[in-house]
Amino acid sequence: MGYILEEEKVFKDPVHKYIYVQDETIWNLINTKEFQRLRRIRQLGTTYLTFHGAEHSRFSHSLGVYEITRKIISQFERSHYPDWPKEEKLVSLCAALLHDLGHGPFSHSIEEVFETHHEEWTCRILLEDTDVNRVLRTVSDDFPQRVASVICKTYDKPIVISLVSSQMDADRMDYLLRDAYYTGVNYGTFDLDRILRVLRPYQGRIVVKESGMHAVEDYLMSRYQMYWQVYFHPVTRSSEIILRQIFRRAKEIYMKGYNFQMLSKPFRMMFEGSLTVDDYFQLDEALAQTVFMQWAEEQDEILSDLCKRFMHRRLYKYITMDEKDETLWATIRQQFETAGLHPDYHLEIDFPFDLPYDVYRPGKIGSEEKPPILLLCDQDQLVEISEKSDIIRSITGLHLGKYHLYYPEEKLSEKAHLIDPEIRKLFGMA
Amino acid sequence: MGYILEEEKVFKDPVHKYIYVQDETIWNLINTKEFQRLRRIRQLGTTYLTFHGAEHSRFSHSLGVYEITRKIISQFERSHYPDWPKEEKLVSLCAALLHDLGHGPFSHSIEEVFETHHEEWTCRILLEDTDVNRVLRTVSDDFPQRVASVICKTYDKPIVISLVSSQMDADRMDYLLRDAYYTGVNYGTFDLDRILRVLRPYQGRIVVKESGMHAVEDYLMSRYQMYWQVYFHPVTRSSEIILRQIFRRAKEIYMKGYNFQMLSKPFRMMFEGSLTVDDYFQLDEALAQTVFMQWAEEQDEILSDLCKRFMHRRLYKYITMDEKDETLWATIRQQFETAGLHPDYHLEIDFPFDLPYDVYRPGKIGSEEKPPILLLCDQDQLVEISEKSDIIRSITGLHLGKYHLYYPEEKLSEKAHLIDPEIRKLFGMA
Amino acid sequence: MGYILEEEKVFKDPVHKYIYVQDETIWNLINTKEFQRLRRIRQLGTTYLTFHGAEHSRFSHSLGVYEITRKIISQFERSHYPDWPKEEKLVSLCAALLHDLGHGPFSHSIEEVFETHHEEWTCRILLEDTDVNRVLRTVSDDFPQRVASVICKTYDKPIVISLVSSQMDADRMDYLLRDAYYTGVNYGTFDLDRILRVLRPYQGRIVVKESGMHAVEDYLMSRYQMYWQVYFHPVTRSSEIILRQIFRRAKEIYMKGYNFQMLSKPFRMMFEGSLTVDDYFQLDEALAQTVFMQWAEEQDEILSDLCKRFMHRRLYKYITMDEKDETLWATIRQQFETAGLHPDYHLEIDFPFDLPYDVYRPGKIGSEEKPPILLLCDQDQLVEISEKSDIIRSITGLHLGKYHLYYPEEKLSEKAHLIDPEIRKLFGMA
Amino acid sequence: MGYILEEEKVFKDPVHKYIYVQDETIWNLINTKEFQRLRRIRQLGTTYLTFHGAEHSRFSHSLGVYEITRKIISQFERSHYPDWPKEEKLVSLCAALLHDLGHGPFSHSIEEVFETHHEEWTCRILLEDTDVNRVLRTVSDDFPQRVASVICKTYDKPIVISLVSSQMDADRMDYLLRDAYYTGVNYGTFDLDRILRVLRPYQGRIVVKESGMHAVEDYLMSRYQMYWQVYFHPVTRSSEIILRQIFRRAKEIYMKGYNFQMLSKPFRMMFEGSLTVDDYFQLDEALAQTVFMQWAEEQDEILSDLCKRFMHRRLYKYITMDEKDETLWATIRQQFETAGLHPDYHLEIDFPFDLPYDVYRPGKIGSEEKPPILLLCDQDQLVEISEKSDIIRSITGLHLGKYHLYYPEEKLSEKAHLIDPEIRKLFGMA
Repeated sequence: MGYILEEEKVFKDPVHKYIYVQDETIWNLINTKEFQRLRRIRQLGTTYLTFHGAEHSRFSHSLGVYEITRKIISQFERSHYPDWPKEEKLVSLCAALLHDLGHGPFSHSIEEVFETHHEEWTCRILLEDTDVNRVLRTVSDDFPQRVASVICKTYDKPIVISLVSSQMDADRMDYLLRDAYYTGVNYGTFDLDRILRVLRPYQGRIVVKESGMHAVEDYLMSRYQMYWQVYFHPVTRSSEIILRQIFRRAKEIYMKGYNFQMLSKPFRMMFEGSLTVDDYFQLDEALAQTVFMQWAEEQDEILSDLCKRFMHRRLYKYITMDEKDETLWATIRQQFETAGLHPDYHLEIDFPFDLPYDVYRPGKIGSEEKPPILLLCDQDQLVEISEKSDIIRSITGLHLGKYHLYYPEEKLSEKAHLIDPEIRKLFGMA
Repeated sequence: MGYILEEEKVFKDPVHKYIYVQDETIWNLINTKEFQRLRRIRQLGTTYLTFHGAEHSRFSHSLGVYEITRKIISQFERSHYPDWPKEEKLVSLCAALLHDLGHGPFSHSIEEVFETHHEEWTCRILLEDTDVNRVLRTVSDDFPQRVASVICKTYDKPIVISLVSSQMDADRMDYLLRDAYYTGVNYGTFDLDRILRVLRPYQGRIVVKESGMHAVEDYLMSRYQMYWQVYFHPVTRSSEIILRQIFRRAKEIYMKGYNFQMLSKPFRMMFEGSLTVDDYFQLDEALAQTVFMQWAEEQDEILSDLCKRFMHRRLYKYITMDEKDETLWATIRQQFETAGLHPDYHLEIDFPFDLPYDVYRPGKIGSEEKPPILLLCDQDQLVEISEKSDIIRSITGLHLGKYHLYYPEEKLSEKAHLIDPEIRKLFGMA
Repeated sequence: MGYILEEEKVFKDPVHKYIYVQDETIWNLINTKEFQRLRRIRQLGTTYLTFHGAEHSRFSHSLGVYEITRKIISQFERSHYPDWPKEEKLVSLCAALLHDLGHGPFSHSIEEVFETHHEEWTCRILLEDTDVNRVLRTVSDDFPQRVASVICKTYDKPIVISLVSSQMDADRMDYLLRDAYYTGVNYGTFDLDRILRVLRPYQGRIVVKESGMHAVEDYLMSRYQMYWQVYFHPVTRSSEIILRQIFRRAKEIYMKGYNFQMLSKPFRMMFEGSLTVDDYFQLDEALAQTVFMQWAEEQDEILSDLCKRFMHRRLYKYITMDEKDETLWATIRQQFETAGLHPDYHLEIDFPFDLPYDVYRPGKIGSEEKPPILLLCDQDQLVEISEKSDIIRSITGLHLGKYHLYYPEEKLSEKAHLIDPEIRKLFGMA
Repeated sequence: MGYILEEEKVFKDPVHKYIYVQDETIWNLINTKEFQRLRRIRQLGTTYLTFHGAEHSRFSHSLGVYEITRKIISQFERSHYPDWPKEEKLVSLCAALLHDLGHGPFSHSIEEVFETHHEEWTCRILLEDTDVNRVLRTVSDDFPQRVASVICKTYDKPIVISLVSSQMDADRMDYLLRDAYYTGVNYGTFDLDRILRVLRPYQGRIVVKESGMHAVEDYLMSRYQMYWQVYFHPVTRSSEIILRQIFRRAKEIYMKGYNFQMLSKPFRMMFEGSLTVDDYFQLDEALAQTVFMQWAEEQDEILSDLCKRFMHRRLYKYITMDEKDETLWATIRQQFETAGLHPDYHLEIDFPFDLPYDVYRPGKIGSEEKPPILLLCDQDQLVEISEKSDIIRSITGLHLGKYHLYYPEEKLSEKAHLIDPEIRKLFGMA
């Protein structure tokens, strides 16, 4: 079960005030080079280009998820709830701390273009020849595997999984509060202390006692507001699109044999789909930005233009459409092409729905994938929360997204005379 | 004097809530690539290794300094104070926004090792062939020079200089509040609104009306607390030392002809003392970190060890001494050398006094260098604030620093048997 | 239109930081004895018995409503919106400041029992022989009447009415923020600065520019949370019921000729329905509490018991019912009576619906009573907000209330053996 | 040792977020009528006339002191410090909760005029025939006496006394934070969590571990700022003076046989110096304000004028003098008298020094009265904090007070022509 530190270690944290470390294993994990690397991966990817304060890293967030998990468990222990398996404390804390270890630079874009998954990388780092693996093995030989299986949701105690990964887990609670703090918006604040007090371990799940329903409503409302005002912000989407295009273009020309003036090994391996854990360790946002700075000087005009746009924040503009209209989009694309714009790089249609977020999906009790939030009513009845809460039921089915068409404004302006007046008007040009 | 934007632009900011841009020149300056580069320079250098939340950039800070300056001027204008020269508004706002433009990656260390000054670089960027220069010249041909002379403190209207650079200027007010916010400490908060309300332009200076004395006390107390708890934190000092040693070592071996596996052009130019503005533009913290990652694999053991320490946060430990004792230090140094440690890299004595900070120095009225904070008493008398405030007088003369000796703990442990028992005990070893 | 103060007056305020007074009329109104009386009327009535921090007065709130109104108008003036009638500034500010002047002690209960309305009293105080009237008349002879007609919603400029009284007026914005601050809950916080920035005067109304929709959603969500967690809190309802019963009982026995040991004149006049403005001025919460303290010693057992309950916080307990069931309630009432409890005082059924609050009601554009919140879309189209916002549409129709039955627990326990087992069980007794 | 509640009770608190009650004794004490009476006594007396937000009661503060004490003890227990006597928990919590029970309305003024002491009244309420006494006796027969002796500082375990009453006790920590919150100033905030973490029970005292020195500095700086900006605010002093004069005048004329139209029993008993605990229970601020409202209509002009001034906030104005000058004051007094002003009521000289506050006084180790704050250095050395901290040493000896002369401005104006020009000028009159 690991050793307790002689003297508790304390980190000052803007969101939780302090983060307390009592276990030697946790302390040693924080000090591995793989965990320290998370300082070089931003928590919110390109969001800092929209909200300049959002420059915080996955390092801070990971400590926060650990701290919330520690608080939940400590409250379970203090209350002597019989349904909490005490021996699962350390594995839960480690999984909470390490769950984001496999994130690469600007993860969402990389994952889309190169079809990787950060959970897989997390597990590889836990299980292969790394400092993290060595620390975990001091607990027991199968400990790295146990931590990995919590993160991959195959662990045999579902209550541990649901601490770290569910619709109201420590991960989401930390990122809502933290992202709200660093962006400076005040939509994301909810009463964490109160949420923690209404959680109960019950029959292998973490549930909410009935009187806590309004606290959960408050939390889901925060989530709703954060998604629409921060996570789906169209300017952030624009920078994500530029980034995705950079990766797509670089891979495309690499495959065609383009001779890069500068191409660091991790990038080459990524293009070839044969990254090792060692390469992956090098792959942080410092490297990505350095590479983009140099690609800005490459011969390939599209790549060079995209990199300048990203580094100097000259993003694509957008227009908004309420409805899906593929015929219209085909017309626009064809007109762009005729006018000399690149149909794959100078026009991108985006719909926020296909994103790894959702406000809340009820799901079924017992569902593996996304277990719903359950209220414990009358001592022993479990009720899915949207059955009790009108407001949660209201927001559950909402599809609020609109379509956005992103494009390079000044390039389009130059060619405006080659575009049909009707389409031109759509893009706000006379 | 520049155009007003048709629609005010607004940035969400965690410290000031919102930052408002009304002038087209300001908006265009923010969008230059040189100003966007400040997103890749951290405001507090290596402090994030001590306070993990302190990951904010000079970009955010620069916007904040601009906003405070805007608020001060706007209050001067609303109150129709006759001593405020209205035609100086735009030059003041530009100087506020751009005053940190010349900061390099981890500035303080670079400046010490390479004897550069960020103010000089700021002025070069303002005056040479850059996007910033082009935007400034749209106002008038001599406008870049005017902005530069405010920043270099040679402008002929001292009131403008004192807005941007004095003992209670917009720069310090923003960084105290911002650094407190991002580190999460609450020492640095003072009542900005109240400070702004008690400032008065008066005979070419910015002074404080008498009833504002307690507000200034509160501000100086914040400064005092921040210096001792954040800016002079010994762990931050340790990381600064590592960084300085990296630069020192790299330059040293470069001069001796060491063949680097990787050495990007801006670094080479810096070693040779012939950086151009173009090179300087490349020199951001992404590049520095990428270079350090690669130097961690260099043959030179000292450089490689230092880079690993910095990147993986394996800092030097320290012991504290109340008194200066050069004889003792010489003994320690000699013993370290005998034991096989490197006397220039494995031991460093640090005293926080030689830092660009001080809590408050009264100085003389009329002094050019650091004009004191003046109270406006009985309508027309200027009194240096520490004459009136006992508490400010109390903290003015304080020398609180202690000496710290930094060293690589595990290397010293290995060699402990070669060290005199007395010295060993000093370092906490049996 | 009134004089400007030579030096702006400033009040420190926990919610808005500072409250600024520039007009002499406003300053003089604040210093009238009728406005100072509001310090002795709590903003949230009996809520301090549930949330102990909620001890703030209508004085603080009135200053807050004034300040928000001042900010809105000042933004309208700065932006030179043509649809804002500048000459209406002072009347708007006065109406904002004075709108709650007629509130009595624990208003809601008094209004219910004695069928008075605080708006009527506000207008009487504005128009009869009072210090407030004298100050208003210094502006012009018809000024008291103009201010009164804004408050009574008969003023001929609807835009002024909607500043002070609409579904998103300065009154509601202040009380949500203030009540959240003093109770200590964090549901009620929304981004006031942002709301203020999206308001526009438009064709005699105050509307919201389209991009402000999410800010309004956030505000309405806060309102929703505050209603269910603070304003409708069943413990607060319990204390309101006790209070209402005190007033009801006192009047009842007074009418029957009961000889009170102590009955101050304003109370006697209130029982007789012939209160003068002078009596009303005496009627504050200090007097009400003093009277209750003495009534606690009266011969009438019911009155004495109720007063002790209120003063020593021995409130009625409650049980909750989802559905309306008048047959069951009649049975309970009859059983209570049989057991010797008083059917009118020892049982009270409460449903939060019949309260002067609602989260949001769309209403029709142009409706006099409760004009809806309108979005200004595409420069010139007004759309009722719930047509655009799914989330607002969702909460608009919600009926979340449950029925609560309040009763004196220890009295019921004593008589439990006289009650049917089924009913007994309903009240949680064996 | 009292019983533990089956389910923890929780109060929402704006300062501490939540207040937790686990002991049945504490719960029952809170529900006594004597403790509920504290809701009708303001924490900051007349300060709400200067800072309108400061309307909070001693009820809230008492819960806060309890909560801080609970947190300190709970940290001592978690850390298993051997020097903490565990059996003292309940007596400490009760003393913390009840320490202010004996405060009357506007205590400081009443205590000065009638020479009573709230600690004495606290002990009488604990020990005589009251609900509080009955609850305490359920623990043990001598328990009321034990709690009382902690409050009177005669308890035989000094560590318990120092929790509740010392220079850094739970009382002061709560009031600084709470008064800062409700007034809205931000001087009074310090890092409570951090202070709590550095406290240690050590040899019958509570001391501070050495590394906590800066946290204590921060706390003392807050105290310094609060005293000068809130507690000693000259406008608050003005209202205290009016209040003192009301009490003084009423007693004076009562003694001379004046026939009051209204004089409630507790006031009569107070004038005669024979208050019982039952009378004292009636004596709250609701009663005081009701009585003042009626005295405003009394025949005695001085009493009537003072009461109107207090109720309608028409306070005395003041002039400030740096130096003590009794000759000058005698002249002024004599001139006032000649001009027909009352020398005892229309002129009052005030010096903030004679107040129950001080920023910090070192005192001697072992001093009974005001034990100093001690640092625990090198495991086992106790050092008085101002020996180590320059900043604390600096503020320790400061005498910042100025003399203020309070007087009724409009009365003086009327008589200005009867006053010497020199004196007139002193009072700002031509």
